[in-house]
Amino acid sequence: MTIPAPLTGVVPPVCTPLTPDREVDVPSLIRLVDHLVAGGVDGLFVLGSSSEAAYLTDAHRRLVVSTVVDHVGGQLPVLAGAIDMTTPRVLDHVAQVTAADADAVVVTAPFYTSTHPAEIARHFRLIAARSSVPVFAYDLPASVHTKLDAHLLLELAADGVLAGLKDSSGDLAGFRAVVTGARTHTGITGFSVLTGSELVVDSALALGADGAVPGLANVDPQGYVHLDRLCREGDWERGRAAQERLCALFGMVKVGGARMGGSSSALGAFKAALYLRGVISCPVTAEPQVPLSEGEMERVGKYLAAAGLL
Amino acid sequence: MTIPAPLTGVVPPVCTPLTPDREVDVPSLIRLVDHLVAGGVDGLFVLGSSSEAAYLTDAHRRLVVSTVVDHVGGQLPVLAGAIDMTTPRVLDHVAQVTAADADAVVVTAPFYTSTHPAEIARHFRLIAARSSVPVFAYDLPASVHTKLDAHLLLELAADGVLAGLKDSSGDLAGFRAVVTGARTHTGITGFSVLTGSELVVDSALALGADGAVPGLANVDPQGYVHLDRLCREGDWERGRAAQERLCALFGMVKVGGARMGGSSSALGAFKAALYLRGVISCPVTAEPQVPLSEGEMERVGKYLAAAGLL
Amino acid sequence: MTIPAPLTGVVPPVCTPLTPDREVDVPSLIRLVDHLVAGGVDGLFVLGSSSEAAYLTDAHRRLVVSTVVDHVGGQLPVLAGAIDMTTPRVLDHVAQVTAADADAVVVTAPFYTSTHPAEIARHFRLIAARSSVPVFAYDLPASVHTKLDAHLLLELAADGVLAGLKDSSGDLAGFRAVVTGARTHTGITGFSVLTGSELVVDSALALGADGAVPGLANVDPQGYVHLDRLCREGDWERGRAAQERLCALFGMVKVGGARMGGSSSALGAFKAALYLRGVISCPVTAEPQVPLSEGEMERVGKYLAAAGLL
Amino acid sequence: MTIPAPLTGVVPPVCTPLTPDREVDVPSLIRLVDHLVAGGVDGLFVLGSSSEAAYLTDAHRRLVVSTVVDHVGGQLPVLAGAIDMTTPRVLDHVAQVTAADADAVVVTAPFYTSTHPAEIARHFRLIAARSSVPVFAYDLPASVHTKLDAHLLLELAADGVLAGLKDSSGDLAGFRAVVTGARTHTGITGFSVLTGSELVVDSALALGADGAVPGLANVDPQGYVHLDRLCREGDWERGRAAQERLCALFGMVKVGGARMGGSSSALGAFKAALYLRGVISCPVTAEPQVPLSEGEMERVGKYLAAAGLL
Repeated sequence: MTIPAPLTGVVPPVCTPLTPDREVDVPSLIRLVDHLVAGGVDGLFVLGSSSEAAYLTDAHRRLVVSTVVDHVGGQLPVLAGAIDMTTPRVLDHVAQVTAADADAVVVTAPFYTSTHPAEIARHFRLIAARSSVPVFAYDLPASVHTKLDAHLLLELAADGVLAGLKDSSGDLAGFRAVVTGARTHTGITGFSVLTGSELVVDSALALGADGAVPGLANVDPQGYVHLDRLCREGDWERGRAAQERLCALFGMVKVGGARMGGSSSALGAFKAALYLRGVISCPVTAEPQVPLSEGEMERVGKYLAAAGLL
Repeated sequence: MTIPAPLTGVVPPVCTPLTPDREVDVPSLIRLVDHLVAGGVDGLFVLGSSSEAAYLTDAHRRLVVSTVVDHVGGQLPVLAGAIDMTTPRVLDHVAQVTAADADAVVVTAPFYTSTHPAEIARHFRLIAARSSVPVFAYDLPASVHTKLDAHLLLELAADGVLAGLKDSSGDLAGFRAVVTGARTHTGITGFSVLTGSELVVDSALALGADGAVPGLANVDPQGYVHLDRLCREGDWERGRAAQERLCALFGMVKVGGARMGGSSSALGAFKAALYLRGVISCPVTAEPQVPLSEGEMERVGKYLAAAGLL
Repeated sequence: MTIPAPLTGVVPPVCTPLTPDREVDVPSLIRLVDHLVAGGVDGLFVLGSSSEAAYLTDAHRRLVVSTVVDHVGGQLPVLAGAIDMTTPRVLDHVAQVTAADADAVVVTAPFYTSTHPAEIARHFRLIAARSSVPVFAYDLPASVHTKLDAHLLLELAADGVLAGLKDSSGDLAGFRAVVTGARTHTGITGFSVLTGSELVVDSALALGADGAVPGLANVDPQGYVHLDRLCREGDWERGRAAQERLCALFGMVKVGGARMGGSSSALGAFKAALYLRGVISCPVTAEPQVPLSEGEMERVGKYLAAAGLL
Repeated sequence: MTIPAPLTGVVPPVCTPLTPDREVDVPSLIRLVDHLVAGGVDGLFVLGSSSEAAYLTDAHRRLVVSTVVDHVGGQLPVLAGAIDMTTPRVLDHVAQVTAADADAVVVTAPFYTSTHPAEIARHFRLIAARSSVPVFAYDLPASVHTKLDAHLLLELAADGVLAGLKDSSGDLAGFRAVVTGARTHTGITGFSVLTGSELVVDSALALGADGAVPGLANVDPQGYVHLDRLCREGDWERGRAAQERLCALFGMVKVGGARMGGSSSALGAFKAALYLRGVISCPVTAEPQVPLSEGEMERVGKYLAAAGLL
């Protein structure tokens, strides 16, 4: 399908359920997609950080994108990450996910290697030139170690290189510069500005964002869809209450504490929650992430119970 | 061949010559290998940072490692990088390079995703368990954004997980802790401690390193082999002079200045030098690196001339 | 005077006008205070980053705080920064500013030296124990290189150690945790949560912040007071428009570009604006900051004109 | 006295003994100076990081520098840190320490505030213009969050602005560029290049450094003097053994582990060692550093015993 321009609403970054031996659990993935669609979401983003894209082999990635695209069957737009270090490697992923009929690709700046603004611009231009579907920029400085500059993004939007932005930088002021710039710049139409910050979706929508890509929406898609609808109606007071409820639920991401990395803890918690809610069959995360203990799983359950999700 | 334990001497990280349309230039790669072997080097490291591994597709990587292994034909050990974000993806690369008969694999800590010491240990243990050849750790905080801890490296060495270290951290004190620890720890034998710091190879050898993996050795293998031999003979004064000559030559890596990233400038300069010396047919670097201008190429030539290499 | 608990509204961090030979320009400082009071602000913060506190000698600091406190004469609360590296040095500044009758002190975590959460807590507890006025925490990771943790802040608030927070971290999600925690934690009353982020004051107020400490309010106090009032009335749409007008005006901080540091450019622009608006006599910043050129001053004038301030 | 140009040998950064109520313990400070002089050191550096300069009030700093200068009485050169955020504040400290007859001042780049190479150059030029004694640059990126560039240092040396460098950056390659540049640059004479890296003093001397400023020399001045003499004689093998013995002793700095900051642990260990060796009366460090426990003190004792110092 053609992706809406702009894409609006809630577009969860879909977790990748795994079997106990760390293969993609296709039936669980399909149930997860059904759970999200039933929750009323507006699109799906596969192969992003919440999908453990960094941990999936190329074969896993192909299986994920084809499973989701085939199952969704054009009901909803499916964006697919093409996460890799540099242009030639990203282009290989773009070829794979577009062969599987993803509706858009989501691409970061180069990482691992040192980079430069001129090289970041060149990277996005080369990818857009060779991609058959729209390209979204993915701003994730915690992983990429570069912050995408608002002026560069707007220039690439005006030139038709980028169709949208997924911003997980945590920098709301920089995000606002893109939102405002995309609205006021005469050469830009239909550019999608999406926030990946679960905890300030109400703020992002209030300042004009088109939508959100919250990892926590795997656990509670209805919660985010409800928040989005309240904000769209201008009911900021109830929107804030809905957001604060989700902030409390998000506390689960710290359940692993200091004995593991942030990814093990956060994605471990999301998968534990999906397992406890009966959506997926196994809460395991990919190697070398540290698994949650039984006690940590129980604490995830308490977060779900407090939010009325269990 | 079985890799020496420890591996000593000069082991250049082999540049990857490209054609004007950014395919691997096999004849140039073979000439580069011949140039290095003729220079007296003790081993070859393919698919590291100087090889632009981050920029090479999987097909390019396979072609590089098979070309070099086949051409060297067991005369020298060939180490191959298996550079990717996490354990499952690294294991795919390990399978590829060992299928092509590389003699050892070189692996970083996880990157892009957030990580934790427990996960780094788990990563190396899983990889070693599934690799048919010895595993070297690659410490490159500028790219990986994690520093490998000396205690962890020594623990993994003692447990037979790691066969060696390539240290490009720039932290000589931390490097010394590994060198001294590997010598004094009763459970460790034959662990190879190699520095990737072109500018202090003499210092590293003086404190007990086994060898060096200097990117600049692509340009002047004889220079590094000479330096290594002087240090081994204990001729520190002439060693220092040889090192200072190489430090001056290394100045070429800044030739691109502030208009491009460090990788574009440094690898661009190495390739320009190899082109000017007649070793490779085309000085181009992979996308999205910015190419050197004519004037910048000329300045590389002046560095070569000053070092008597042109 | 006793500082309100919580302190609400707009509390500008007052610039420090200097003479051409870099002494405190007392008449200009008094005019600046009058300009802010006439603009309707709710308090004044002297000796913060916008005051160039890092550049002021102890004698300058004493002159600034006594001038402002004496001139304001209890009409408005005056908070004073006590910015230094560690507890003993901060305590000396606390003694100075409280001797000059400041109504509260504003203190960062230790900097320059390496620090630890246990030491940060100890630091604030020791300072509060020896301060005769309330202590506000100042979260400014760009300068301090430590982020204050929401849990620690709430614990110190509950223990009566801290009376408030000035958050210039740019991390709205972390800020929200403090705002929400301060509201819901049973042991906390009257804790002031203030944002220092000029560009998202509307967002901060919408999620429950008590007020703002925007450097740009030196230039346009009425603009921020208007924004604050709109938000308090729940007129979010006009609030957003007022905020966007201020975001455009804030563009002046980049006027110095790449030829100087961010402080030289931003504080240089604020002072140029105050000079062009006739509030202060000389736009000079403290050494070693690079002064703005004539052309850069003119561009500041264009920002003022576009905002209707000239 | 006039400071030698270059200053060579071992110049310990002198710890600041404190009383249990955190005042400067003058008798202990004098005993510490005697201990260092008896150890054969070539100069003294007061008010640096190992002196807890960041934690000392201005009154403490004045007392330290006058005590040491008066006691030493011109036998040895005394360098004094003038550690503060920016030019005007540093100049106040320069005035204080030169009033107390320090023979040179040691100054970092600006910190806390954002800075720029042009501002760093301006900072050193302004300070040198107003200092009656030679100015040494202090490169300590862990505290200052800026790395001093070799080209800038050499330019300032050639212009007579800087008399020397204390390098605690840990970047031996960058240090080497200064050492080699100072030797080969025709406009530079008598510039002192000193390393602050305790663990690679042999390496620094081998590549041409003039001397060392090792914090651990408080604990074992003879050890460092012996190392320095061996290196000067070209006995690199015994030099390396002496260095490795000191590296083992340096292990004490980690005794506080993860429950405190690095400064609390390292300076706590140095002071514990001086206390256990009978040099100072009380091992306490300044607030808000966490004190070592009894068990941690005992472990310091074991390091001393292993090195034959107890």
